[in-house]
Amino acid sequence: MPKNVFYAQSGGVTSVINASACGVIERAREQSAIGKVYAGMNGILGALREELIDTSKETKAAIRQLKTTPSGAFGSCRYKLRAPEAHPLEYERILEVFRAHDIGYFFYNGGGDSQDTANKLAQYSIQQGFPVTCIGIPKTVDNDLPLTDTCPGFGSVAKYVAVSTLEASLDVRSMAETSTKVFVLEVMGRHAGWIAAASGLIQSKAGDPPHVIVLPEVAFEEDAFVRKVEQSVKRSGYCVVVASEGAQTSDGRFLAESGGTDAFGHAQLGGVAPCLVDIIKARLGYKCHWALADYLQRAARHIASKTDVEQAYAVGASAVDAALAGHNAKMVAIERVSSSPYRWKTKLVPLSRVANVEKKMPKRFIARDGFGITQAARHYLAPLINGEDYPAYRQGLPQYASLKRVLLPKKCPDASF
Amino acid sequence: MPKNVFYAQSGGVTSVINASACGVIERAREQSAIGKVYAGMNGILGALREELIDTSKETKAAIRQLKTTPSGAFGSCRYKLRAPEAHPLEYERILEVFRAHDIGYFFYNGGGDSQDTANKLAQYSIQQGFPVTCIGIPKTVDNDLPLTDTCPGFGSVAKYVAVSTLEASLDVRSMAETSTKVFVLEVMGRHAGWIAAASGLIQSKAGDPPHVIVLPEVAFEEDAFVRKVEQSVKRSGYCVVVASEGAQTSDGRFLAESGGTDAFGHAQLGGVAPCLVDIIKARLGYKCHWALADYLQRAARHIASKTDVEQAYAVGASAVDAALAGHNAKMVAIERVSSSPYRWKTKLVPLSRVANVEKKMPKRFIARDGFGITQAARHYLAPLINGEDYPAYRQGLPQYASLKRVLLPKKCPDASF
Repeated sequence: MPKNVFYAQSGGVTSVINASACGVIERAREQSAIGKVYAGMNGILGALREELIDTSKETKAAIRQLKTTPSGAFGSCRYKLRAPEAHPLEYERILEVFRAHDIGYFFYNGGGDSQDTANKLAQYSIQQGFPVTCIGIPKTVDNDLPLTDTCPGFGSVAKYVAVSTLEASLDVRSMAETSTKVFVLEVMGRHAGWIAAASGLIQSKAGDPPHVIVLPEVAFEEDAFVRKVEQSVKRSGYCVVVASEGAQTSDGRFLAESGGTDAFGHAQLGGVAPCLVDIIKARLGYKCHWALADYLQRAARHIASKTDVEQAYAVGASAVDAALAGHNAKMVAIERVSSSPYRWKTKLVPLSRVANVEKKMPKRFIARDGFGITQAARHYLAPLINGEDYPAYRQGLPQYASLKRVLLPKKCPDASF
Repeated sequence: MPKNVFYAQSGGVTSVINASACGVIERAREQSAIGKVYAGMNGILGALREELIDTSKETKAAIRQLKTTPSGAFGSCRYKLRAPEAHPLEYERILEVFRAHDIGYFFYNGGGDSQDTANKLAQYSIQQGFPVTCIGIPKTVDNDLPLTDTCPGFGSVAKYVAVSTLEASLDVRSMAETSTKVFVLEVMGRHAGWIAAASGLIQSKAGDPPHVIVLPEVAFEEDAFVRKVEQSVKRSGYCVVVASEGAQTSDGRFLAESGGTDAFGHAQLGGVAPCLVDIIKARLGYKCHWALADYLQRAARHIASKTDVEQAYAVGASAVDAALAGHNAKMVAIERVSSSPYRWKTKLVPLSRVANVEKKMPKRFIARDGFGITQAARHYLAPLINGEDYPAYRQGLPQYASLKRVLLPKKCPDASF
């Protein structure tokens, strides 16, 4: 009997993680050597709680529609498994559930922590005499995984940020003569500035917005920032700032944590953008507007990058191929074959080398003054946002997949997770 | 000699105001009875400063591209003319510039304040013996102009808000089991809740997001709000809130006042979302995320409503037709001929009846508990977001018009405005 697959989504979701799920399921359905694909309800919690969604109950059309549906169709979770030597209970439970449902393949679709978990489970399952083939499928809007040219999820958020910055720049430029002179957009990126950097793709000549990019890789200096904003307003009539949520000062203090209190004495909520706006208003007196994209940026399937969608699908499908070819404890990665014209392929890298390594923006991608990106960065980023891949619309709204999510009957004793 | 046109964009820009400009210019170019179209650099300031952009210097292709370009291609401004009886200087100056450049038609593309100005100038120019034909072209994302079924600009921001709410809802639903349970999206709408209401278009059955819509038309009651959020989380596992920036308590206090005022003396708003998040965290302890769409929503040409684009173009073109047919002191409005199937046409309404009247959401559009919209509202709103009208893309980015903006040589003495 062919073994079944357990597929789980992990951590913050993206607009294309379901495209990876689509890749896994469609490829697995073609393979007689693979049984069914079960998806964890809410990620790895689905294994711990024995809540397994039977994807064979979903129609071919519904699975296809996953390719154009954002966020985690099976539910995701923020749940980090600890080391199996010290905390074996969770690993024991996962293997118990895997045994009960004849699961021989574990595809974990997540970021660095998830790749670490997949690696630990691979080793632990061998030790326990019930080897499970563990393959990691990369996913993170932050683009901070090592050994892969890019992470599926990033290209689409990069496109969203580039397009939104372009559009908002035209807006503030229209208004600047008598009204708003500075616009600040806060984007994701706790430790790495890839997302904010992508806004620099809209620059084609000196003076083009965004005039200031605030990256976590560069220690924030208030005086230099204020000078840069003032110069931009004097030169162009307006200033557009794109700031990473993880912007920090040289002593490692996040700007987002520097807020004061409001009129009611509540600690001021919000992050980097209101903090930067406060600085600009206080020191330059310009009228400012700001936006916080938050989940809108990573859920924006309506403006996904076609390149990103194709890569997300490919890493899912390739995980199936890799497992069937006998690979284990590997992550599917993207290799850039050439930049112009852009060509790429998937490859496999050892999970042990991926786990818990964060890829930040290299120095050569950051402008000398620290407030922009270089041509080398644009050269790297440009292909990742290329192409549109619109979902189908009905009555003005995108038609996103709504799955049945039929759970398998439980076979194991209850356990509290 | 045929008289020339002066066209000006006014107030906050939209993703389709340039489609109206395109309608004016393309229609005027077809008419031998009309000379050239001059556009005010930064709206009415362009007349006061004698900064007139000669649109005849722009190529046919560039003018066509305006139809898919967001924000004000000629610059807009927040500048309200006072009453001519008490403050005639500005009106005198405008007529001086109009005389010098042989302008017989004034098309003012803006909201309520601008329609008021157009009306005053029409009367004043007659009194001065230099009659100028003044036609208003409606524009406002707020959808708050009277006598028109909808305002160009609104349908596209409504579509952006509906799509973004749908996408963010899928995201928080994916994460709710172990992480974020409540997501709050703050949208524009100072006195009228049309924009927030549009998020209700994604509801097709009970329990669908958004679970709570906070409208300025309904006095905000904290206890009722907290109960509604808690019920939604208990029922659906998560809660999505869409809040108008103009949300206020029964004593007329805005939930978030930034303290400043804009050029029209309106309070500058922003900060309802963090205020609501603060309440939810304090009283329910749920993990929350929030987004502030700000300019992104009104500049989002990439997800514009096709219906809205067509209406924006039509009101521009119809202004030319109306002027040539001898109408004066009229605004072009949209008349809904039928809802299903949706059919509409343009009509003319007197400026005197438009000026300074604000159309709020009627009671029959608001759910009984005050936190949602009715089927009647959906019936009204649905056609306005219908259809997609994507801009052309190159290398992953929308190709937006970049005009030459050639200024006419000045003929009048300098004046300081």
